[in-house]
Amino acid sequence: MTDALIERKLIEIMRIISESDKPVGARSIADELNNRGYGIGERAVRYHLRILDERGFTKKEGYSGRVITELGEKELRDALIGDRLSFVSTRIEELMYRMNFDPETEEGNVIVNISLVDNNDLEDALEIIKIVTANGITISPRIQIFDENSDSKIDVPEGKTAIATVCSITIDGILLNQGVPVEPAYGGTLNIKNNEPVNFQDLISYSGTSIDPIKIFMSRKTTSVLDVLDTGTGKILANMRTIPASASEKALDVINRINASEIGGVIRTGESGEYVFGAPVDFGMSGVPVYVGTNVICAVEEAGIDVATYPVSTVLEYSNMSKL
Amino acid sequence: MTDALIERKLIEIMRIISESDKPVGARSIADELNNRGYGIGERAVRYHLRILDERGFTKKEGYSGRVITELGEKELRDALIGDRLSFVSTRIEELMYRMNFDPETEEGNVIVNISLVDNNDLEDALEIIKIVTANGITISPRIQIFDENSDSKIDVPEGKTAIATVCSITIDGILLNQGVPVEPAYGGTLNIKNNEPVNFQDLISYSGTSIDPIKIFMSRKTTSVLDVLDTGTGKILANMRTIPASASEKALDVINRINASEIGGVIRTGESGEYVFGAPVDFGMSGVPVYVGTNVICAVEEAGIDVATYPVSTVLEYSNMSKL
Repeated sequence: MTDALIERKLIEIMRIISESDKPVGARSIADELNNRGYGIGERAVRYHLRILDERGFTKKEGYSGRVITELGEKELRDALIGDRLSFVSTRIEELMYRMNFDPETEEGNVIVNISLVDNNDLEDALEIIKIVTANGITISPRIQIFDENSDSKIDVPEGKTAIATVCSITIDGILLNQGVPVEPAYGGTLNIKNNEPVNFQDLISYSGTSIDPIKIFMSRKTTSVLDVLDTGTGKILANMRTIPASASEKALDVINRINASEIGGVIRTGESGEYVFGAPVDFGMSGVPVYVGTNVICAVEEAGIDVATYPVSTVLEYSNMSKL
Repeated sequence: MTDALIERKLIEIMRIISESDKPVGARSIADELNNRGYGIGERAVRYHLRILDERGFTKKEGYSGRVITELGEKELRDALIGDRLSFVSTRIEELMYRMNFDPETEEGNVIVNISLVDNNDLEDALEIIKIVTANGITISPRIQIFDENSDSKIDVPEGKTAIATVCSITIDGILLNQGVPVEPAYGGTLNIKNNEPVNFQDLISYSGTSIDPIKIFMSRKTTSVLDVLDTGTGKILANMRTIPASASEKALDVINRINASEIGGVIRTGESGEYVFGAPVDFGMSGVPVYVGTNVICAVEEAGIDVATYPVSTVLEYSNMSKL
């Protein structure tokens, strides 16, 4: 973990404590951090709280709650002001830096989304995931499951199971590691008609938002993934990155090579400056739309199962993930 | 209405018809257009449909529904491809161009948000609006009410009442008309502590989204406007525009003059390149955060009343709007 990342988490923890009216425990802080897209467990929060206590920014109050000190409030106002509000693109860059999947060995970290379901719903959810991944409108069929007792960095609340799906930003990380400059551009809803993608219905840029675009679209319940499976027509989620048009050939080569590792989902690559499914692309750049990994989770939600999803959450070793 | 605007609506109507499995009537098209931020009534839709029929892009099927023709599908794919997905900032520019409020005469059009409530809830909603506008965390206390029988360009469904609130983008329009170059930057949630704004919690840029940021935050139900009224602490909605730092003095002068017309809500103006409540501002620019007009509607929703809101919806004559 980089120093900048630790500092950002410290600030975020101070924000959470400061926003509360009463002392806050590590458990609640971890939950809220996960809400805000930081995949961090209760133990890690305790470690960060010790640092904050040592710096005099927080102090214990009552049995195990923390409050912010006057010094902490001042720090929060002054220090690292830009990091208070971390845009999604900053978090994406961190994770792209931490991922190191190697298409040759088929090993290394990929970026994942984390979804939490009730243990009671797990069986039904997995059944749906199995059906959707068979259809290909997602980046990879491989998932990983963590229960509340699993000894991992994924923090699973009691009574819940975490399902990790491969995040489409993994494509960006792989391209970057293979020397293709890439920039995540938009997340959006894509209209599918007769099993063919037609156009983006709505788009939100990754660079100008502090809430993940895919999370926004998921919470608006705009998808109809199950309809696409049934009838070939509906709305699913996709995102788009841009690469220099001159790197298109190399990108296609990389994309073809990772198909062997069950990583796909790339819909097409555009020509220089060509609008892709209605989404604008700068001249000299090519747009590369990809079906996002959370489409399988959207289908689970459409079936009436409650899921809390944290897109672009953390990195996991790909060879530990498997097809249902 | 400009030709470009008509063309955009024609395309949007074709998209709606094309996305449907069955023939669509003018009523449903008008509803969906309103969902997508076009303030347009059923009669206006009929007018646009006649144009589309004449061009051979749509045709009647059944009693009163329209389907898209093969020629229409082709037009939709090829023509005006960039306009298929109109970003919020494009719509804002159109409305800024159509507004002409004059601070001297206190007359002319302002930009408004339209909110629809059930007639049964109207009395309760107005009571809350009255309380919130008295508190000042909105841009203007003036509103305008349209019932289902009102003969206006606002299209009010049966059983509903439309409440128009002044939209904070009106500030942008006024500044622009007075010669201050202005660009809407972000919509966001602003933390208030002891009645003082502290920092933005989340931000979404106006330029990179096809869904209005304020609409996104409203649908996520993230505000606690009523808490701010009760305790001085909570979360409200605000947006930010940037102006050249050198125009700050002139902007402040304009802002002071419009206070006489009951248009306020401007929280402060930043220094050149200064972060405003944690929101980044480019060097040479000043950030100007403003409490949005829909805060009053958020309060209504927090009280458990269902409201459908279309921010930055249309323009209305300000002198016809009044304080409750």
